[in-house]
Amino acid sequence: MMKRIAVLTSGGDSPGMNAAIRAVVRKAIYHGVEVYGVYYGFQGLIDGDIKKLELGSVGDIIHRGGTILYTARCEEFKTKEGQFKGIDQLKKFGIEGLVVIGGDGSFQGAKKLTEHGFPAIGVPGTIDNDIPGTDFTIGFDTALNTVIDAIDKIRDTATSHERTYVVEVMGRDAGDLALWAGLADGAETIMIPEVDDKMEDIVARLKRGHERGKKHSIIVVAEGAGSAVEIGKEIEEQTKYETRVTVLGHIQRGGSPTGRDRVLASRLGARAVELLLEGEAGKVVGIERNEIVHHDIQDALSKKPSFDHDIYKLSKELSI
Amino acid sequence: MMKRIAVLTSGGDSPGMNAAIRAVVRKAIYHGVEVYGVYYGFQGLIDGDIKKLELGSVGDIIHRGGTILYTARCEEFKTKEGQFKGIDQLKKFGIEGLVVIGGDGSFQGAKKLTEHGFPAIGVPGTIDNDIPGTDFTIGFDTALNTVIDAIDKIRDTATSHERTYVVEVMGRDAGDLALWAGLADGAETIMIPEVDDKMEDIVARLKRGHERGKKHSIIVVAEGAGSAVEIGKEIEEQTKYETRVTVLGHIQRGGSPTGRDRVLASRLGARAVELLLEGEAGKVVGIERNEIVHHDIQDALSKKPSFDHDIYKLSKELSI
Amino acid sequence: MMKRIAVLTSGGDSPGMNAAIRAVVRKAIYHGVEVYGVYYGFQGLIDGDIKKLELGSVGDIIHRGGTILYTARCEEFKTKEGQFKGIDQLKKFGIEGLVVIGGDGSFQGAKKLTEHGFPAIGVPGTIDNDIPGTDFTIGFDTALNTVIDAIDKIRDTATSHERTYVVEVMGRDAGDLALWAGLADGAETIMIPEVDDKMEDIVARLKRGHERGKKHSIIVVAEGAGSAVEIGKEIEEQTKYETRVTVLGHIQRGGSPTGRDRVLASRLGARAVELLLEGEAGKVVGIERNEIVHHDIQDALSKKPSFDHDIYKLSKELSI
Amino acid sequence: MMKRIAVLTSGGDSPGMNAAIRAVVRKAIYHGVEVYGVYYGFQGLIDGDIKKLELGSVGDIIHRGGTILYTARCEEFKTKEGQFKGIDQLKKFGIEGLVVIGGDGSFQGAKKLTEHGFPAIGVPGTIDNDIPGTDFTIGFDTALNTVIDAIDKIRDTATSHERTYVVEVMGRDAGDLALWAGLADGAETIMIPEVDDKMEDIVARLKRGHERGKKHSIIVVAEGAGSAVEIGKEIEEQTKYETRVTVLGHIQRGGSPTGRDRVLASRLGARAVELLLEGEAGKVVGIERNEIVHHDIQDALSKKPSFDHDIYKLSKELSI
Repeated sequence: MMKRIAVLTSGGDSPGMNAAIRAVVRKAIYHGVEVYGVYYGFQGLIDGDIKKLELGSVGDIIHRGGTILYTARCEEFKTKEGQFKGIDQLKKFGIEGLVVIGGDGSFQGAKKLTEHGFPAIGVPGTIDNDIPGTDFTIGFDTALNTVIDAIDKIRDTATSHERTYVVEVMGRDAGDLALWAGLADGAETIMIPEVDDKMEDIVARLKRGHERGKKHSIIVVAEGAGSAVEIGKEIEEQTKYETRVTVLGHIQRGGSPTGRDRVLASRLGARAVELLLEGEAGKVVGIERNEIVHHDIQDALSKKPSFDHDIYKLSKELSI
Repeated sequence: MMKRIAVLTSGGDSPGMNAAIRAVVRKAIYHGVEVYGVYYGFQGLIDGDIKKLELGSVGDIIHRGGTILYTARCEEFKTKEGQFKGIDQLKKFGIEGLVVIGGDGSFQGAKKLTEHGFPAIGVPGTIDNDIPGTDFTIGFDTALNTVIDAIDKIRDTATSHERTYVVEVMGRDAGDLALWAGLADGAETIMIPEVDDKMEDIVARLKRGHERGKKHSIIVVAEGAGSAVEIGKEIEEQTKYETRVTVLGHIQRGGSPTGRDRVLASRLGARAVELLLEGEAGKVVGIERNEIVHHDIQDALSKKPSFDHDIYKLSKELSI
Repeated sequence: MMKRIAVLTSGGDSPGMNAAIRAVVRKAIYHGVEVYGVYYGFQGLIDGDIKKLELGSVGDIIHRGGTILYTARCEEFKTKEGQFKGIDQLKKFGIEGLVVIGGDGSFQGAKKLTEHGFPAIGVPGTIDNDIPGTDFTIGFDTALNTVIDAIDKIRDTATSHERTYVVEVMGRDAGDLALWAGLADGAETIMIPEVDDKMEDIVARLKRGHERGKKHSIIVVAEGAGSAVEIGKEIEEQTKYETRVTVLGHIQRGGSPTGRDRVLASRLGARAVELLLEGEAGKVVGIERNEIVHHDIQDALSKKPSFDHDIYKLSKELSI
Repeated sequence: MMKRIAVLTSGGDSPGMNAAIRAVVRKAIYHGVEVYGVYYGFQGLIDGDIKKLELGSVGDIIHRGGTILYTARCEEFKTKEGQFKGIDQLKKFGIEGLVVIGGDGSFQGAKKLTEHGFPAIGVPGTIDNDIPGTDFTIGFDTALNTVIDAIDKIRDTATSHERTYVVEVMGRDAGDLALWAGLADGAETIMIPEVDDKMEDIVARLKRGHERGKKHSIIVVAEGAGSAVEIGKEIEEQTKYETRVTVLGHIQRGGSPTGRDRVLASRLGARAVELLLEGEAGKVVGIERNEIVHHDIQDALSKKPSFDHDIYKLSKELSI
């Protein structure tokens, strides 16, 4: 069995990463395994920015947003040279396995390490919920509640003024955040990359609602489905209703993680350690149908993330 | 197909009940079916406290705690006479099917109605997560985050003072809320009805942590596992550490529902309507392994709610 | 003494307006005076959109954002014709005095009514804290906490990524929101309309911090001090540090009011009623040096809102 | 001018203490003065648990509850021997002045130090708002919002069930927290140590409200005005309305400080440093009528904290 493992966070940060780090550290120590933290993602791996973590190192972090190990993007690690530099650093510290917490870019790095003979396990941490092989990623639930909280606030003022509001949320390739938030907030229209809406349908829908006496309309747009600013302009032109645009931006990445995200992060972080200790490599952990699972990273990277058409259909039916 | 259905909430209220009511109303109207609201649960059913609901009746409620239909406990409805009085009222209004949102007591009522020939469908709404046939009940996720938020606050002061805190959360028969909150908050010890902890083990654990330099200890107790006040007293006597007790109480039932609870409530409320329109009766809807399902109420009532032993085991391993 | 008064909200909405409406209604009824609500601001006044309010009309609203009376902008009321139409409507309902909750635009309307012989009292409700004659406006405290909560979230991700963030907050003419939020969040730089910052000083400051090892920098910009997008671009060009921009937008107007705003709104709403009953007219109420005061609307409109130079100086000293 | 000062927190912790510590450290460094942190209050002073603080020591703490310097109660420091031991420790580190953040017990310590020739300045940090010489203490505003948030949640369930709720909040000698929270939440009755309510009046009030059709009643009790549990029992017996009791407990001491508390803490912490550098000793800083002030500790300790009778009267009038 391995005696020493390491953990890093990479790519965009997401709430719950600290809970995952904590789980990796505590689970490893529970099994008598030493744990090291790699700071600043793959860049820190190349640079040897690596320190031992103890129980105390992860005290009082389970409820904190961001990542105590910091994160960075790293071009050099996309090259074979960079990857071998990283492996050399890990070996210098006597580290035998690595847990990589991040999105699909980060998993590419984990896959390369494994191909070069160094066992690595991926843990899906991103607010976008766009990783295949897991129903939910760490951070999605927190971002969902951040968005909902923001839209609830916007609704106050939308109602008072009888306006149309267009709210842009994160999600370049995946519409999950917009879809769930839109359904949870009773949005009139949800625009996501997975579906090709026609502006004329959206406008018609707004007009119908208006005629029925709706006090306000909220349109949630995933960034991958178009620019809220431009959509807002077009809607105002075509409907003549006062229209306001809000781009929620980086508040979506932060905040204290929700209960779900803390529990999911704890379970996935712990499972990643188990897999390493069981001799596995090149896997990514996830939750599917409410069970902790793992897949080959390759499979995860080649599939498309699932999209819940039932929820989308429901959102349409309920926003009549 | 039915032309007119009704909806009521019964038993203890839970966050998300309004989102479920909204989904029932909108889904029914989507299918061209009229919807009536029964106020004050089965008591209102007997009394004929029934009014028509329109789209506007459920506007601006998806994010509100409590239930706009109110809830009440009703002894009379446990008798056959009461049940037939209720059916008479429903028939007087031309109502052909009923959606009952509540816990297992409420489902007994729905079962009786169905046995007497009146189709009823149950929707699980309770913060306790103790309904068999569903992995999650409406309200559990919100209560979980309310508890976590409270414990995060207590942790601030626990750390500043280096004290032991015993926090009692709801859960008479089921420990899910205590378990999830305890894991999510890094509690040292979680006491739940499903497991019989020995006080001497808990005390030993506290002492070990203290010797290792822990600044504070948090013990989460489900109300079904003992009285926090008495547990706190015993711990203080046996450890001599300053110990404080907080009973979270009724704040756990309220609050704006989380994204998860709003989405779950929307899905389950809508599915209940579909079942009625498909001619089903005496069923309870739920979510299992991330899919919307339904079971015979009888089956749901005779089984024990599932308890996740893996999560409990994990909580033990991570709180070394 | 008057027998019947009315209340309206006008201009941009702010959290706490409902608490003020509630106080007007309850205080009036306490004194045996009838109260009417004018819907949609001065537009509703012209249109006679006026209904009687009872104790029950303001039940369960003290904690709600927005305004149950709605608000609107109204060009027609800027004309003498519009003003007299409004007075006619008020007289038709037997109303003898009016409470106007809003910003300085709204007070112009109240002043005109008083000049035409109809007693009106202004209550300052705006998140911008830009009304002379009051240290704080209703809504400012809530908006402050909304901004702080957002910046706390941005800080998580800023720290994880070691980036510079530029955050734009509301405040066209007044920098209070940016100043207080910046001080409360430990921002490196606060840009407000009252002070003319040089970009070279800001850049120099950022570089000094960076050299000292700061993990991130946050710059808070009041919208009246420049466009965050352009400021962000310039900073990134000149420092070469990765820079991100977030425009907080309309979330700042919504949300459940804070304790301070609810108490302030209750006090000011009640005081406005007292003034009407005491025979006063053309006044605006406020809080100065922790006491409830009132001034002639004319004075309030002709003065500049005070700016706290001590707080600004402190923010500079603490962000070394 | 002094070259080296120290800061400690003492007594019960309150949200904003970290913001005050941060201000002391940064203000001192701004003036070229070194700052040391004394850990665990006066106990740490006696034990010499003292470490140098740098700008980095107070990074990322402005938004955190609790106190990074910890706090403790200390019997020994009440003796002259203990006080001189503390002074010896301070002198050993070359420290010339001390800032003490805490409540009135802590100010007694600061006063003694000054009497023995060692300059100390008090900064009022307590959620109880019971320090004379300041209109607001650091932590009061946060606790107010925590209480309000809890009561808002309880209101959801109170409304759904049509019950009476008795909520106990902190405040042994001062009723400010109960008073402000009660007013801000529209409580029917507020029981505070400053006023002697008769149970028969409270019961009569409840019955009147009930007859008028109120869906629920909330009674806020400061702990100094009686036990919520006993009050609840008596009310249920006399009214026969279903009554529930919640004791909010220690959640009131924690949480991220509000904007007001952060700004107040920053201003008072900075002012304390200025006073030391100006050669002052034996003073306590505060905010009065919206201005930063200071008084002799002796005066502050001998006066009674002010109680706002206008606000109490208003709460009565608005809860008709």
